[in-house]
This record gives sequence, C-alpha cells and structure tokens, in this order.
Amino acid sequence: MPETDRPRTDRPLVISAPAPRTLDLIFTPDALERLHRRYRVIEADPENIAGLGSAVLSEARYIVGQPPLSADTLERMPRLRAVLNVESNLIDNMPYDVVFRRGIHVLTTGQVFAEPVAEMGLAMALNLARGIVDADVDFREGRERWGGEGNKSARLLSGSEIGIIGFGDLGKALNRVLSGFRAKIRVHDPWLPASVLLDAGVEPASLETVLAESDFLFVVAAVTSDNEGFLGAKAFAAMRPGAAFILLSRAGVVDFDALIAAVESGHIRAASDVFPEEPLPLGHPVRRLPGFLRSAHRAGALDIAFKRMGEMVLEDMELMDRSLPPMRCKRAERETVARMRSKPVTVN
Amino acid sequence: MPETDRPRTDRPLVISAPAPRTLDLIFTPDALERLHRRYRVIEADPENIAGLGSAVLSEARYIVGQPPLSADTLERMPRLRAVLNVESNLIDNMPYDVVFRRGIHVLTTGQVFAEPVAEMGLAMALNLARGIVDADVDFREGRERWGGEGNKSARLLSGSEIGIIGFGDLGKALNRVLSGFRAKIRVHDPWLPASVLLDAGVEPASLETVLAESDFLFVVAAVTSDNEGFLGAKAFAAMRPGAAFILLSRAGVVDFDALIAAVESGHIRAASDVFPEEPLPLGHPVRRLPGFLRSAHRAGALDIAFKRMGEMVLEDMELMDRSLPPMRCKRAERETVARMRSKPVTVN
Amino acid sequence: MPETDRPRTDRPLVISAPAPRTLDLIFTPDALERLHRRYRVIEADPENIAGLGSAVLSEARYIVGQPPLSADTLERMPRLRAVLNVESNLIDNMPYDVVFRRGIHVLTTGQVFAEPVAEMGLAMALNLARGIVDADVDFREGRERWGGEGNKSARLLSGSEIGIIGFGDLGKALNRVLSGFRAKIRVHDPWLPASVLLDAGVEPASLETVLAESDFLFVVAAVTSDNEGFLGAKAFAAMRPGAAFILLSRAGVVDFDALIAAVESGHIRAASDVFPEEPLPLGHPVRRLPGFLRSAHRAGALDIAFKRMGEMVLEDMELMDRSLPPMRCKRAERETVARMRSKPVTVN
Amino acid sequence: MPETDRPRTDRPLVISAPAPRTLDLIFTPDALERLHRRYRVIEADPENIAGLGSAVLSEARYIVGQPPLSADTLERMPRLRAVLNVESNLIDNMPYDVVFRRGIHVLTTGQVFAEPVAEMGLAMALNLARGIVDADVDFREGRERWGGEGNKSARLLSGSEIGIIGFGDLGKALNRVLSGFRAKIRVHDPWLPASVLLDAGVEPASLETVLAESDFLFVVAAVTSDNEGFLGAKAFAAMRPGAAFILLSRAGVVDFDALIAAVESGHIRAASDVFPEEPLPLGHPVRRLPGFLRSAHRAGALDIAFKRMGEMVLEDMELMDRSLPPMRCKRAERETVARMRSKPVTVN
Repeated sequence: MPETDRPRTDRPLVISAPAPRTLDLIFTPDALERLHRRYRVIEADPENIAGLGSAVLSEARYIVGQPPLSADTLERMPRLRAVLNVESNLIDNMPYDVVFRRGIHVLTTGQVFAEPVAEMGLAMALNLARGIVDADVDFREGRERWGGEGNKSARLLSGSEIGIIGFGDLGKALNRVLSGFRAKIRVHDPWLPASVLLDAGVEPASLETVLAESDFLFVVAAVTSDNEGFLGAKAFAAMRPGAAFILLSRAGVVDFDALIAAVESGHIRAASDVFPEEPLPLGHPVRRLPGFLRSAHRAGALDIAFKRMGEMVLEDMELMDRSLPPMRCKRAERETVARMRSKPVTVN
Repeated sequence: MPETDRPRTDRPLVISAPAPRTLDLIFTPDALERLHRRYRVIEADPENIAGLGSAVLSEARYIVGQPPLSADTLERMPRLRAVLNVESNLIDNMPYDVVFRRGIHVLTTGQVFAEPVAEMGLAMALNLARGIVDADVDFREGRERWGGEGNKSARLLSGSEIGIIGFGDLGKALNRVLSGFRAKIRVHDPWLPASVLLDAGVEPASLETVLAESDFLFVVAAVTSDNEGFLGAKAFAAMRPGAAFILLSRAGVVDFDALIAAVESGHIRAASDVFPEEPLPLGHPVRRLPGFLRSAHRAGALDIAFKRMGEMVLEDMELMDRSLPPMRCKRAERETVARMRSKPVTVN
Repeated sequence: MPETDRPRTDRPLVISAPAPRTLDLIFTPDALERLHRRYRVIEADPENIAGLGSAVLSEARYIVGQPPLSADTLERMPRLRAVLNVESNLIDNMPYDVVFRRGIHVLTTGQVFAEPVAEMGLAMALNLARGIVDADVDFREGRERWGGEGNKSARLLSGSEIGIIGFGDLGKALNRVLSGFRAKIRVHDPWLPASVLLDAGVEPASLETVLAESDFLFVVAAVTSDNEGFLGAKAFAAMRPGAAFILLSRAGVVDFDALIAAVESGHIRAASDVFPEEPLPLGHPVRRLPGFLRSAHRAGALDIAFKRMGEMVLEDMELMDRSLPPMRCKRAERETVARMRSKPVTVN
Repeated sequence: MPETDRPRTDRPLVISAPAPRTLDLIFTPDALERLHRRYRVIEADPENIAGLGSAVLSEARYIVGQPPLSADTLERMPRLRAVLNVESNLIDNMPYDVVFRRGIHVLTTGQVFAEPVAEMGLAMALNLARGIVDADVDFREGRERWGGEGNKSARLLSGSEIGIIGFGDLGKALNRVLSGFRAKIRVHDPWLPASVLLDAGVEPASLETVLAESDFLFVVAAVTSDNEGFLGAKAFAAMRPGAAFILLSRAGVVDFDALIAAVESGHIRAASDVFPEEPLPLGHPVRRLPGFLRSAHRAGALDIAFKRMGEMVLEDMELMDRSLPPMRCKRAERETVARMRSKPVTVN
C-alpha cells in the first residue's frame, strides 16, 4: 500500500487515552511511527474526553484506551468505529447499549498475555511436579538430596490428566504449550459448546469432573458476576491428593483462605500469580506457605506482550479503515460485557 | 498368549544381576510376577557370574544387568541372546568383540529417563527465562516486585531460537515437549546425518551455530572419548548475552569452571542437573552462584522411569523369545561401545 | 440440565423455515427430539413469515432458516435473538441494519462443510499430483504403465509449496488436513491481519506470491463484490508450470474460460468442485478436458455435514437461551454482509 | 570438511553394482560428483564380483548394490564395511551369518518409498471414500449427479477409525500424513512391542481388532515366511460393511481371489498398488471390477525417491568412514533376514 508511506493530510483521527498504559509502552518505535504516519493522533485526558471539542470529537474514528464516555459525548462522535481497550479488563464506564446499537466495536487486547501466562503456568506446573524451588534452595544451603532420594513426591506431566477451567485465549495458549506432553486434557467452560472444545482436541467436562480427575488443574477463567469465589473448600477437597492447583487469572474466582488451608493440610499443592490484595501485606500467611509457589502478578507483564498490543491495534484499525471487521483483537460481547468483574490493573 | 498364564517347567533362564538397581526397583509387582511366570530367574553375584556353574551358564538366555564377563565365561554360555543393561551406561567389562561377533545383543534402557529429563530441562529453561526461583524466594522475604517491574529480564520460550546438542532419546524427548512453542530448533549431533534431523523437523547445525544462535541451549550429549570437556570458555563466550545454558547429560562434556565464570560474569544464565563431583563439596562455588539453577542429579530418577525399565526388558525378551530382534531397548553399537565414557551411577 | 428432559409449556418459540434444507435433513432423529422437547417449533412458509400472526411473531426467539423479512415484520418480533441461516450463503432479503442495531445475531452454519470440502480438496491435489484417475482408467483398458514408467509427471505433496486463497473455516480445515505433509503453506486473505495467519502457523502472502510460488494452489475464497472473476488469464500465466489449481469455493471468483485455456495449454493442471452453471451443459468443454478433475458440487454435501448443522443450531440456541453469545455458528458481520455474492444452493 | 573438496588419491574404494537401479537413477548429478570426489568407484558386473581381482576386493570398503557374494569372495574382502542394497528387498544370495559375524552392515534404502507410498495410500483412501474416479468418468460422459445426490455412500476420513497392518517406515509415514484427520488409528505389528506403538501415538491392536474395527484398513506389511497370504476370505468377511481395504506393500500377503470376491459382493471397497502378477494379464477380472481402485505399482517409484537413495548412501558411507554406525539406511537384522520373501523388482 504505497499511500501509507507518506503522511497524509486527511489521516483518520485517533483519540489516545491509553492509561494506565502509555503509547511508548505498547508501541515499538517503528509501530509508533506507523501510527503517526497513518493517523492524526490526539492525546487526551481520559477523564475529560468531552472537553476535546467538537472539531476533534466529530472526526474521531478510534479511541485507543478505555476512558469514561457519556451518552452525550458518544452522540458527538458520529464517526467512531471502535474503542480499543489496551488495558484489557472492561469497566462499566460507557453506555454499552448505545455503543453496540451503533455498531461501535469495543476491542480488548488481553490476548497478548495469553502466551506469556501460559508459559508461566506450565513452568508452575513443572515446578510443583518436581519441587524445583525448594530443591535449589536446599542445594544453596548444602542439604540437597541426590538422585531418586530427592524425588519421592516427583511426578511427570507427560501422560497425566490435566484440567483447564476457562477456554478463552489463555486456555487455548495453555493447550498449545501442553501439546507435546501426551496428556489427557479436559476443559470446563460453561460459555462454550462441547463441539467447540472437541474441535480443539480437548474433552469437554463438568466442573466436578475437572476437579476430581485432574493431576494438574489450571484456572484461567475471568471473574464474572456468576463465578466470584466459586472455587472454595469443597472444590479443593474434591481434588486428588497431591494434585497441583495453578491460578492464573484473577484471585476473585477463588476463596483464597480455603486454598491456603488445602495446601497447608498437604492435600494439594498450589501456585498463583494473583492474590486477593496486590501488593500483598507483608505478614500474609501465603508468603511462607510450603507447597505453594508464588508469582507477583508477573505472568503476563512482559515487554514483548505490551508491544504486541500496539501491533494488534494497528492491524485492526487498518482493517476497519477498509470497512472490514476487526479480526485481531477480541470483541466485547453485548450479552456478557456487563457480567465482567475483573479489576483493571493499576500498574503495568 | 494363553501359554504364558501358567508357570512352565521349560521356562527360559534369566541371570539376574541388576546392581546398582534391584528387581524391585525396576519391576512393578505385576511385572515381576510376569517375569517369574515366564522365566526361570537365577539371582547372581555380579562379581562372580563364572561361579554360577555350568548347568546355569549353559542354559542362560538373558542377563539382566551388566556384570563383568570374561571370554571364558561367555564361552560357557552358548545360548546367551542378550545382556540387558538396566543401569544404562556401558562399562568396558566384557569382550565386546566376542559379544558382537556372536550376535548377542547388548541393550540399554536409559531411554526411560528421556521423558523425565526432558520435562526437567524445559522446566529449567522456563525458570531461567522467568526468574521463578528468585521471585519466589523474594516473595517469601517480602521483597517481591509486582507486574512488569519484576520482568525486566524475562523472556519467552515461544518463538525463541533453541539449540540442542545431541539428538538421542533425550534430544528427541526435548524436541517433543518443545513442540507447542513455535520455536526454531537447531540440533548439533555429529553422529547423525542431516536428513535424519530434517525428518524430525529440526534444523541440522554446526556446533558454532547452535552456540552463537540460541536463546536456550540444551546439552544432552553423552561423554565420549571425543568430546570430554568440549564446551569451555570459548564456547560460552560465543553464546548470546543473556542466553540460557542447560546441562542435562554429564558434567564431563563441560569445563565446569569456565561455565561458572561465564555465569558469574553475567554473560549467560545456566542450569545443571549434573556436577563434576556428586555429591558436590559443601563449599563449591556453584552452590550460591546467582543466575544458576541447581538440580542434584534428580532429573531422571523418578520411580515411574525405573518401573518402565522392567517393562522394556520384558517386551524385548518376549520378542527375542520369538527369535525376533529387540525393538524397545537401545542396542549398543559395535563401532561406538568403546568410545563411551559416562560414569555409571552408584545411587539410583 | 434435568429441566430439559421433559416438554415444558413455556418453551421458547422457534420459527422453522429452513428451505432448501428440511428439518429432517439437518437434524438426526435424536436431535430433532431435543429440538422439540426444548422449543415450540412453528413450521412456516418462508415466503410469508408476516402471515404467522402476532401471537407467534411476538413470541419468536429464533428463526431457523433465512426467509425474507421486512422491517415491519421484524418490528413485530421484539424477542427475536437470532436468525440461524442453515443454507449458509447470505441473501440480502432483510434490513440488516435493523437486525444488527437490535443485536439480533445472523448466524451461518456453512462451517459444517469445511471438513468434507478440505478432504476433497486434498484428494484432488493428490489426484492431480499422481494422475490417479487416468491411471485407473488406463488400467481398466489394459494400457497402464508400470512403476516409474507411469510416474513421469508425478510429484509429492510432502515438502511442496502450497498456497491457499482465503482463510475462513475452509482454509483452516485445509491447513489442518495438510499438517502431516511438512509443506510450506502460504495464505492470502485480505480480510485477515498477518499476525492471525502467523499464529495459525502459515505464512501471510500477497496474491502475487501465492500465484507464483505454489506447487498446489487452493482457492477457498467466497465471492464478494470485490473479487468476482479476480483469477483470470494473467493469474494462471503467473503460476508455475505444472502447478495444480484447485477450486473449492465458488466459480464466480474465476474466469472459467481462462482456466480452461490454461489447462488446455498444458501450463497448469486443475480440479474444480464448482462450475459457472450447475448443472453444466452437456457439451461444455471442461467435461473432457485432459488435466482437469471434475466434481459436481459434491465436496461438501455429505449427510454427516447436514446433520452437524442441526447440532450447531441446538448448541448456539442453548447458549442464547442462557443470555450468552452464540459461539458455534459463524456470525454475519455488519461490515461485510452486503458484500457477499455467493449464490445460495437450490439443491442440497 | 575441506578435505572432501578435492579428489584424494587414497579415496576409499566402492564397488558399484546397483542393478536393477543405475547410479544415474539414484544419484543427482551433484551427488554423483560427491560420490566420485570422495570415493574410488569401481563398476562391477553383479554376477561376477569374484572376478574383480584381489587388488580391488582387498581394498573394497563398500558395495553399492546387492550382488551375489560367496563365502570365498567375502573372505577376499577384509575391509568391507557395508553392503548398501539400493533395490531394498533382501535376496538370500550371500552367507548372511558370515556377514553379520564380521559386523558388515547390510543396509536397505526402501525408506525412500515410504513418503510417496503413504501419499498414494491416503489418496486411495480418499478416493474410495468419495468415489472420485467414477464421479469424474461420469462427468466426462454427462451422467454426473450433483451435490448430495452424488454422495449417497460418501464418507469422511476425519474422525474415522483406521487400521494399519505393519508399522515400519511406511506405516510411520502413513501415520504422519494422517495426523491432521483426528482419526483413531490402531496398528497391528507383531514384530513391535506395544509401548513402541503407544509412543508413536497409535493404539496397538490384534489382527482381529484392526480387521473388525476399521473404516479404512491399510496393509503395509512385508511378505515373510510367516504371513504369506494371511489375509483371505475370512479376514475380509470380518471387515465392516463398506470399509476400505488398501494394499500397499506386496500382493503376497493377500489371497487376491478372495479380495476380488469380497469387493465384487459389495461387502468392502478396495485399492491396490500391487498385483499377483506384474504386469497383470489383460483379461484379469480386477481390471474392470467396480469398487476397486487400481495402481500399477506406481506408488513409490518417483524420481525424487530414487534420488534420495543416493543421498542416504552417501550419508551413511560418510558416517562409516568416520568409524561411526550407519544411521540413515535400515539395517538388515540377523534374526529376520532369512524370513523376508518380497520379490525384488525388475523394473524401477
């Protein structure tokens, strides 16, 4: 497309309000240059989009970010095609009924975290299976056990039974990194029909089944109004002795105290990237809980993931510029947008 | 095969000398029962096979273990079909020229370790890539860093460039567990032709290339008379800054002091399952070396692996009973048996 | 869900107008029973939905079929959640702007044909590569050539370069059945961003590249207002000598006379499942054209595919009954619905 | 290896007797140049190797071909390391006991045919499943049936149950090209232990099971003294009605008259690349048998396959030159060499 090679005076207008991200976080220098070459980018105060003035609002084609928008402000933006939410959790801060009625796409970019989180999830599973952290700490201290002596409770991921709760982008990425392990993978996702899971090569299963029949259980479901705290004492008790519970999405789906109790009792092992409070108070019991592997919400936040957000934004804006539907980002759904309860992040 | 369901008086004779393993270690109770139902098993002192007497020697079809055998003793064993080495490292303690001339198979079962070691290798790579051990230790101590702050040097395995040195059973198992990562995998193995590697979906490469072009480098080559200490200061200097070096086979292929220096300087990160001395002296510098992940020769020694040895032994003996070649264990090769230098283990 | 086990008096209302399909074609007996147990199904004349009366219209939740709908009729259907088009080509016979504004889903089930068509496409490629039809006909006639003599122009799919134009459900299914061939697969799809193709493991490419660099070229793009007849004499001339051109979607994307000329000249070989007129006139030159493999629009129309339509319909209606978005069928897109030009089928 | 770039006076000696192949058939011009640069190649009359004279015999390191060798002649060849059989069927024309005792490798290159034959086998399966040949012939004649009308007996390979008898190179290649079809694949191979099949991702099965439970049954077993004609009327009767029987190895494993009867009765469909006599008499009933797809021993004999033979030969000779074992060609086994009964080909 030769016309993209030079700045154009009639470039479509983009309102930039990506907080808590920044354009520099989500675009590589090259991508940022492409953004500016193709679009007129207006930096905006997310708390005052209305104040941008009608010359800007009436021309705006895209919003990068997720600023609060009133019905009035939307009314003043007749050319708006998409809100590109680069935070990735949806806040209920705009009249979504109006947005959907007008066919304005609400797009999220959280998919960029799927691959890094899946790798961390696999790492956690392997760490729990082989006791890697404690073995290294013991080795530092001179009390390591050699060979089979150190492997009394070690187990393989290959050939094991694995459960995944939630089969969005992250569940799919997990399934992919698990593909070399010849494991039996069962998935519970009440928002997906069985045949979609079968097509992905996994076995659809009830919550009861994935709890009771997994050696490794990955939780990647988003918090919704339906599932807050749905994994509690009863769920953990239903798990196999020695099974590994790996929490990768949001602490809100779990009764954290019950999880701690289940690990403390020795019934299961666990790893988590998310916690009820972040940062976590210094005296929190999970900090020194044996059988628990901790990650301070680091699973997804890799620079390469943020940079992919910018790529996704550019790719979908280019499709929409050609009056095609966006195919890269995930679209918020009219039916479920109001059910989402994940707290947006405040740090990147 | 109904005839195997009851003990037979004419059962083939097996000499059992599996030290340092034991039959109980390598056979499940079920497998052990099958062994005894099918074969007459004579427990022997490995140091005195000759003393078994001619009635036993003249009938022996298989030896399970790797006891020293003299030419004379072999001469007295006209029906010997195979020596099934369940330790897996080959010792030069029998006249291999005679053995091969007679078509006696020398079989090793080290293949059982490939899957557990590959999983540990992948875990090590992910741990080095994401700094999981130090992050957990920091979290315990209350000095964890949250989100992207803790990921300054984090990287993905997905889409990376990976090198593997050695493409025996372990290299192949590694390639398998890496199959979901869309990585570019290069293999250096001077004992295999390029087309075999291409058929396995990896790129054949020189040692120089895998050293210089890998983000993660796995060393799974056995020690031979050709490659002792072949990875030294020059090799480490040729690696990419920040690359991960993961040693899974034998310490003998590496100049360990040079490896420590390369990690200490911050040039590379490393993990190892094997060490120049095992157990390692308490004061050894690698014990507290930052950027180094330690495993006390635990990567392969899982109970499930030992039990698979017994299965392999039974499967191949059953083929050989039918005058078919063994297809499960690995056969020692006339050309290379004398080049092998791995020290056998003394503990399981 | 125990409540589904017995007929309910408050069952949601479904208007059935599946012509040219029938309910018996698309539902197995079991599925039909589930449909009736869960829903009140009103059979309707597709040409007179308006005549159903307000009692029906005001209650209707789903339409199975694609009958013409006026704005007035839609107005009388306040509870309509989805039009489930079981033919799969979209006709411009309803006010789509109203439909989309109201959030009524327009769903197509053509995905069921992807797998059968992909298998036929692969079969065509292998047939062209190995000359299977002519070889069998020759064998019947006693003029077969044995061994290498019969393989002068034979080639392998394994390791070849393959192009796919269009990467919807069918393109993805083709990519899947090709996964065992270690081929280099390039895809041209102007409606998809490059990164989506890269994630699927294929190489994004321009139309020029897939034409010029393919040994086998599969055309699975739907006809749109943009691409009618876009593959003509120039395109065929750009192809590699001896390459195979396999047409699986709609004849409308191809200049068929130019295709015939290109095959007649010996420059390329071709196979097609679709033709400019169906049925094709008896004297049409393609009927006896050497180097051309013919299939009378049979690639997709398998009974098993039709029956899967009914499953998809049931699965998505069940999600929508729970106020969740449909995840099984394909949704018509506001931006592209008007561009679609495929003629609906008149026979199943 | 710079030393290979120029002819050497001390090049190892190769005796060339590749009939019925020729060096030009199995080597590309480049490979032939490499052969001559690295080796001193002596063209020999296969029927008179003894006549080459002691200067040649005493120096010969390799024989390319499978000429008759007497014990005396072998005695005169003290440096012989390998007989590289480029025909690929083993003839009992040398004292194999002597050969094996001396550790001379007997290598076959039939593996080059695995990929082309597997592709042909898959093509045959798809052809039988979809009736492609008859549909094309009908189309030529103007009696084609359109859409579902033409698909009454059509079926999918995807999701089907598939049996493979024999899991050598060809069985493995078949398994690979079938990998995108989500089929359940069972394998019967009495020469392989169950765990080897499980590791390959297929299900080990008895002959009875693969006969009774397959929608598609591929026969790729070599003829041995144990299995001549083992698939007869009883086996075909045990197959599922409408199942497809695909014969790819040797006609000798099948009772061909019984196969014809089973197809004639309509019970099964079949395809074959091999026949009891080749060429087949003109009046043979299989020539016009409906439900039977014929290929005149063309499945493997592609030029690209022959050229790969030369590559394999060069790769393994290079390993053996370095005193390493050959890793590319297949080695004849002491236990089974005498059981092989495949007739060598007389045409390429």
